[in-house]
Amino acid sequence: MAGGRRFRAGDGDGPEAAIRFADAAAERELLLDPELKFGELFTDGRLILEVGSLPELLAVLLGRNHGEPSLRQVRALATLRRLGRRIAGRNTLLRARRNVERHYDLDDRLYALFLDADRLYSCAYYATPGMSLEEAQTAKMRHIAAKLLAGPGQRVLDIGCGWGALGLYLAEVAGCASVRGITLSAEQHRVAQARAAERDLSGRVRFALEDYRTLQGSFDRIVSVGMFEHVGPAHYDAFFRTARDRLAEDGVMLLHTIGRTGVPWPTNPWITRYIFPGGHLPTLSEMMPAIERAGLMLADVEVLRLHYAETLSAWRARFLAHREKAAALYDERFCRMWEWYLASAEAAFRYEDAVVFQLQLTRRNDVVPLTRDYVAEAEVRLRRAEEEVARGEVEPVRVAG
Amino acid sequence: MAGGRRFRAGDGDGPEAAIRFADAAAERELLLDPELKFGELFTDGRLILEVGSLPELLAVLLGRNHGEPSLRQVRALATLRRLGRRIAGRNTLLRARRNVERHYDLDDRLYALFLDADRLYSCAYYATPGMSLEEAQTAKMRHIAAKLLAGPGQRVLDIGCGWGALGLYLAEVAGCASVRGITLSAEQHRVAQARAAERDLSGRVRFALEDYRTLQGSFDRIVSVGMFEHVGPAHYDAFFRTARDRLAEDGVMLLHTIGRTGVPWPTNPWITRYIFPGGHLPTLSEMMPAIERAGLMLADVEVLRLHYAETLSAWRARFLAHREKAAALYDERFCRMWEWYLASAEAAFRYEDAVVFQLQLTRRNDVVPLTRDYVAEAEVRLRRAEEEVARGEVEPVRVAG
Repeated sequence: MAGGRRFRAGDGDGPEAAIRFADAAAERELLLDPELKFGELFTDGRLILEVGSLPELLAVLLGRNHGEPSLRQVRALATLRRLGRRIAGRNTLLRARRNVERHYDLDDRLYALFLDADRLYSCAYYATPGMSLEEAQTAKMRHIAAKLLAGPGQRVLDIGCGWGALGLYLAEVAGCASVRGITLSAEQHRVAQARAAERDLSGRVRFALEDYRTLQGSFDRIVSVGMFEHVGPAHYDAFFRTARDRLAEDGVMLLHTIGRTGVPWPTNPWITRYIFPGGHLPTLSEMMPAIERAGLMLADVEVLRLHYAETLSAWRARFLAHREKAAALYDERFCRMWEWYLASAEAAFRYEDAVVFQLQLTRRNDVVPLTRDYVAEAEVRLRRAEEEVARGEVEPVRVAG
Repeated sequence: MAGGRRFRAGDGDGPEAAIRFADAAAERELLLDPELKFGELFTDGRLILEVGSLPELLAVLLGRNHGEPSLRQVRALATLRRLGRRIAGRNTLLRARRNVERHYDLDDRLYALFLDADRLYSCAYYATPGMSLEEAQTAKMRHIAAKLLAGPGQRVLDIGCGWGALGLYLAEVAGCASVRGITLSAEQHRVAQARAAERDLSGRVRFALEDYRTLQGSFDRIVSVGMFEHVGPAHYDAFFRTARDRLAEDGVMLLHTIGRTGVPWPTNPWITRYIFPGGHLPTLSEMMPAIERAGLMLADVEVLRLHYAETLSAWRARFLAHREKAAALYDERFCRMWEWYLASAEAAFRYEDAVVFQLQLTRRNDVVPLTRDYVAEAEVRLRRAEEEVARGEVEPVRVAG
């Protein structure tokens, strides 16, 4: 093909991949701004994969990293910290809603093509090797419910409830008295409401189109999964102060968010331009000052890394298996964009410093047991409850509206 | 007694305590600077406990806190953050050594009066309720060895090795190939060396009088228990950069340190004046920037709170049981000072925001298993190895010097 060039990387044993540029300008653009341009050129069909898959290409390019930042990178990143914060910008109530619409209001049928049946759009928990995506997503809800010390009598708030799976789990399996789930996506809200009604849980599980900042009330448990990535550093104080104000004095909060373990740094520009506008992946050093100032007490931090690489790999495999349906919904260009999104995100968890933080937060130092043993014990109980629900042995408790 | 006044606090159900001032000036001094003066006046015999014990008095004063900082306190603390950092000051090589001598070179017989037989001077781990101090200290070493993924073939560095118990455990029970323990206390160094020789472990376990900043070499495992409190915020970058430089590329580090979950704040002035000069209790927001800049990857954070309250309570009970021996070693005034130290520290963990952080750090994202299940599994194996060592079934491996 005219103007094309070839590259090949990888040694004898490792993965191998080759790319070709469709035009001479493409290569120049890539060299000038690789973080943005790799995804753009691939999406536009100007960077063409000739040998290997995207994961193999990324393994060739990043495979030796094991998540360790090079010292050069660390120094460069440190000096750019303030700039990064400015870039991350402010998510006003209006912009927050627009950002969410941009991603989560994509055609519902698209998400059905690559997510599990329960529609969990966050890192799964591969509790044992060889789990399917479905099993790992259920294990994630079980793990979160265990660390929330979730149980009967509790009022639960789910900030960023998605399509409702976790809220329904907390009511149905963990037996929580009531769940209020909030989202900014009209599409998610519609689906979540319908699912609650379908399972006769509308009395106990209410989903609302609402911003966390305008919320009122007090809750025994607060959970937030995969939403904090959209908050933005300028609003961390507001987020944690709101959480503290909404949390009962003997309450427990579980925050599950993508983050990074290197120095603070603006999120990949391709991701913020094409996939998650307004998004920022926080380091603990960015989150902790706001948590401390809010008067929330840190009770535990779990750091999940390769779980998300496995999750993204499973999503990508499903997406590729249904690629023709996705192309019919959108077009080829969209499919390449989505493929790059899933493959580059997987590489960030496998080779770079991307992680999922699960932060357990409280207002008192005596509401979480002394050792972590309670987590495994609760998971055994919850698994039994899941089986009872599946066998229809649990009669949903109806609470008057 | 002339000039005395009485106070009484507590309601019908709770603990009760009454204090009396020996002179009118004492009360004024207390009101002007309670953080410093409570301990001083008690030590000097000018604040006299007439009803109840010190823990009961502190429960009356602080019992409703559950570790939750009041909002007023949070705001006041935030504005004083920079001042606190200045107060915390710099620990040069010389001053670091002097600070350590001040506390850890106290008469060895004093520590024998209140610590466990293995001489572990840090938070125990009460893995199951009702454990004795001895059992909980062994459980702590087991827990740390498990999270270190400690095992045969490894070179271990123990920064702040105390009287050597953990280093000996890692060699003898966990089977690590070699342990290098460093301390700045001549007294601890002498005792640790003697214990290694006694157990025929001198070939594999070497203790040295050395500062972490002058250390050379590469280690598969780095552990530091109860030493970071003495480092001081001005030296956090140096500490973590040194740790990263000493850690093998596939290594694991476990840092166990007292800290706080509120906003950064100077450590109690009485404690830094009389007990731990140069000491500072870090928040995670103070530690994380240095960890991120050093290029170390956070793999796990465990937050232990009431474990240290229990430990300090056990130490205090033992100290009081041998109070006469302590008075013979020093004097009555010293005994009151030590009593206040142990009781006020216990209250800080029970009612304030003091915690122990156990941070697991690596250089690669694939050296720690995906889930935390490996910890309990390793603890079972280590417990079996402890029993074998106790029965004399393990022949110490001799390595040529």
